[in-house]
Amino acid sequence: MAHDATVRSSAPATSTARAPAGQPPLAQRLAAEAIASFFLFACVIGSGIMASNLAQGNDAVALLANTIATGAILFVLITIFGPVSGAHMNPAVTLVAASRRDLPWSEAAAYIGAQLAFGIAGAWAAHLMFDLPTLQVSLRARTGLGQWAGEAIATFGLVLTILGTLRYRRSAVAAAVALYICAAYWFTSSTSFANPAITVARSLSDTFAGIAPRDVPGFVIAQLVGAAAGALAARHLFDRA
Amino acid sequence: MAHDATVRSSAPATSTARAPAGQPPLAQRLAAEAIASFFLFACVIGSGIMASNLAQGNDAVALLANTIATGAILFVLITIFGPVSGAHMNPAVTLVAASRRDLPWSEAAAYIGAQLAFGIAGAWAAHLMFDLPTLQVSLRARTGLGQWAGEAIATFGLVLTILGTLRYRRSAVAAAVALYICAAYWFTSSTSFANPAITVARSLSDTFAGIAPRDVPGFVIAQLVGAAAGALAARHLFDRA
Amino acid sequence: MAHDATVRSSAPATSTARAPAGQPPLAQRLAAEAIASFFLFACVIGSGIMASNLAQGNDAVALLANTIATGAILFVLITIFGPVSGAHMNPAVTLVAASRRDLPWSEAAAYIGAQLAFGIAGAWAAHLMFDLPTLQVSLRARTGLGQWAGEAIATFGLVLTILGTLRYRRSAVAAAVALYICAAYWFTSSTSFANPAITVARSLSDTFAGIAPRDVPGFVIAQLVGAAAGALAARHLFDRA
Amino acid sequence: MAHDATVRSSAPATSTARAPAGQPPLAQRLAAEAIASFFLFACVIGSGIMASNLAQGNDAVALLANTIATGAILFVLITIFGPVSGAHMNPAVTLVAASRRDLPWSEAAAYIGAQLAFGIAGAWAAHLMFDLPTLQVSLRARTGLGQWAGEAIATFGLVLTILGTLRYRRSAVAAAVALYICAAYWFTSSTSFANPAITVARSLSDTFAGIAPRDVPGFVIAQLVGAAAGALAARHLFDRA
Repeated sequence: MAHDATVRSSAPATSTARAPAGQPPLAQRLAAEAIASFFLFACVIGSGIMASNLAQGNDAVALLANTIATGAILFVLITIFGPVSGAHMNPAVTLVAASRRDLPWSEAAAYIGAQLAFGIAGAWAAHLMFDLPTLQVSLRARTGLGQWAGEAIATFGLVLTILGTLRYRRSAVAAAVALYICAAYWFTSSTSFANPAITVARSLSDTFAGIAPRDVPGFVIAQLVGAAAGALAARHLFDRA
Repeated sequence: MAHDATVRSSAPATSTARAPAGQPPLAQRLAAEAIASFFLFACVIGSGIMASNLAQGNDAVALLANTIATGAILFVLITIFGPVSGAHMNPAVTLVAASRRDLPWSEAAAYIGAQLAFGIAGAWAAHLMFDLPTLQVSLRARTGLGQWAGEAIATFGLVLTILGTLRYRRSAVAAAVALYICAAYWFTSSTSFANPAITVARSLSDTFAGIAPRDVPGFVIAQLVGAAAGALAARHLFDRA
Repeated sequence: MAHDATVRSSAPATSTARAPAGQPPLAQRLAAEAIASFFLFACVIGSGIMASNLAQGNDAVALLANTIATGAILFVLITIFGPVSGAHMNPAVTLVAASRRDLPWSEAAAYIGAQLAFGIAGAWAAHLMFDLPTLQVSLRARTGLGQWAGEAIATFGLVLTILGTLRYRRSAVAAAVALYICAAYWFTSSTSFANPAITVARSLSDTFAGIAPRDVPGFVIAQLVGAAAGALAARHLFDRA
Repeated sequence: MAHDATVRSSAPATSTARAPAGQPPLAQRLAAEAIASFFLFACVIGSGIMASNLAQGNDAVALLANTIATGAILFVLITIFGPVSGAHMNPAVTLVAASRRDLPWSEAAAYIGAQLAFGIAGAWAAHLMFDLPTLQVSLRARTGLGQWAGEAIATFGLVLTILGTLRYRRSAVAAAVALYICAAYWFTSSTSFANPAITVARSLSDTFAGIAPRDVPGFVIAQLVGAAAGALAARHLFDRA
């Protein structure tokens, strides 16, 4: 969800530099993005299954476990894959990077493809590990103004977190994104998906973390609106400092 | 609740430097203070709503979730907004900064206005996200000598945490303030508001995190007494070292 | 429980330097030790009261809250008071420091006095904040070979943690000690007091964290045996590297 | 489970340097590996006993406590013993190090012996501290395709975490490994042993963390397959960057 190498904190508007020297080749970056998305989505869905299996109906305990597992894996994945691909794992973040000319649009499309394909594979791996049917469709309704507001606010804050940390304290990006998501799981009524790819993947899992497919478009639109607003706000808040 | 740019660890008493070169313009600092307060207060109140909705009456589980969400967002907000405005999000901290001549009194008043206005907006956003009525007044009584002592001790410790970290290990200020509040949620009977602005905002939320308006003055007075004592103690403990 | 300034990682046996230049005066170090012990003991006991009040009899949830609060305040106190006094807050640690000639024996005695006096004051402050009688005596039995073994092993590990971190990664001492205690709360049957002063203070609190006075000597002896063994092991493990 | 000194991030295939200057003597490294394994295994098993004793049958709460204790002690042990022996505590990690020629095979065998012997002693110490019979055999069945897939995926990710962190951000190895295991406890159906030595030790403990001896070989084979795949993937993902 964050990125390190491919979102620069203050790209000049006239920049044409699209492939900074020293950046790994695209195939390697796509492999990093794929494996990172696989682990992130497997963790979000797998820890949700484990937690709701064990929590005896206490959903606060289940969400606490889901929160800690998600935050922990985010720290790890951004730490090890950030220097390779940026560790976006999130089309909203990739689109922000492309809009800032930190990533060519063609590479952004490839990133998003890798996130979706391997993220869904991660969801299926979670099903496999817990002896559940691979192919599922969620029945869990997640809709309404409150949840859409939550998704927009959560993604707005996620983009601010990434761009602000890259601007002022690059070494803290993994910790900041991980902890931001830990908080957002609790202060939004939707538990803060804040990621279009994971929204799609979670629609294919009829478990604790699922979302019914008909509710996906509303979530994705809210996330993209929040991300665009976050990118604009960051330009005012951080880039002039 | 902490701050980085505008509280210096050992301002000479004769200092007249009120606008250090390199500090962002006031409008940008106020925007940072506003957005930070919005997210902090939305998180404190929103995570309280989510936690008590899910915890099946086990308030220890609910407070644990509230604690983790609050600590996590504090780390993020201080990391990204600290370098802009100091990320006070707290009138008691702003007053300490002004008393140390790290911030002119006129700017301190503007900071406090932004904290209150956008903090209350954050409380309302939490209500919106959870499909609750926007305008509420808390009915939750929080009063008595024990709770006042708790608020004074908690704010005393918060000020020591900020000034001590700035003095010795500036890069740890976000982690230290976040973890201090995590601890103080549990070792005080009031769950440690330690912040006059959030006390006001929480009086406008009839949820897990609320406080009845008639109990606000007692809390605020105790917080200011604790903050003043903390600033004095810090001068002895840290500034002569 | 850790210390930074006054335990050196490899003091030569012939060292006579007892008051390194640049170390704060003794009065200031004792003040730091006193306030740190006050907050640590208030937090251990206060969070225990809060947690058992709220946890509806689920002691695992209560201990989890107690763990997180204790670890969080330890990180804070070692970060801000470590550079002043070493932030021992623990007679076993102070005795190890003295035995390594990092602290004169006379100053060690003053440290221990401050830890005991202000630590007990911290326990009383916890009682005050939770509207409990100030003066109490614990009735909670904690005894037996298993618990003594636990105290010895826990204190052994604490001393290794402090001396190993100071040897190899000084900046991690606050995080390492905090997380060590978080773990030790759970892997010992006694919940790892690992500190003679807090053992005495907890005997004066008939709450979740209490220990009956008749069981104090067994705990303190086990702690001192473990600390001595840890200091010896550290000399072999770390100092020759 | 990680290591610092003895796995280099990109050992040339023709390297013959087996005992880098400055590395501690083998006896000291084996002592570090032994004490680290003792504490890790005592913590995994001891915290499992404590948690299931207290959790009133809510296994999500018990696993949460087990998770936090394990992650905390991993951070500590890798921080203090990593610079001495690498703090592998895990035969799969030691075999990866040997396969990368970072450790001679003869030393790898000695490492694995120390991990097993002192890890089992740690399990017995946990039994002693909780007043349980020392010698036990677990009856807890843990088998099936889902759990084997989980062990392989978990160990694959552990090896990526270690090698990726060593490659890009060596100072984060303790935090990354600790948090990786925290996540993996929840996203795998087996709670992620990811360590052949701890699998053996846990077969000797009929407690929360146990595994029946007849299920050990399946777990160990899956772990070794995952570790080998992780070492290969790391060569592609990180070493060419």
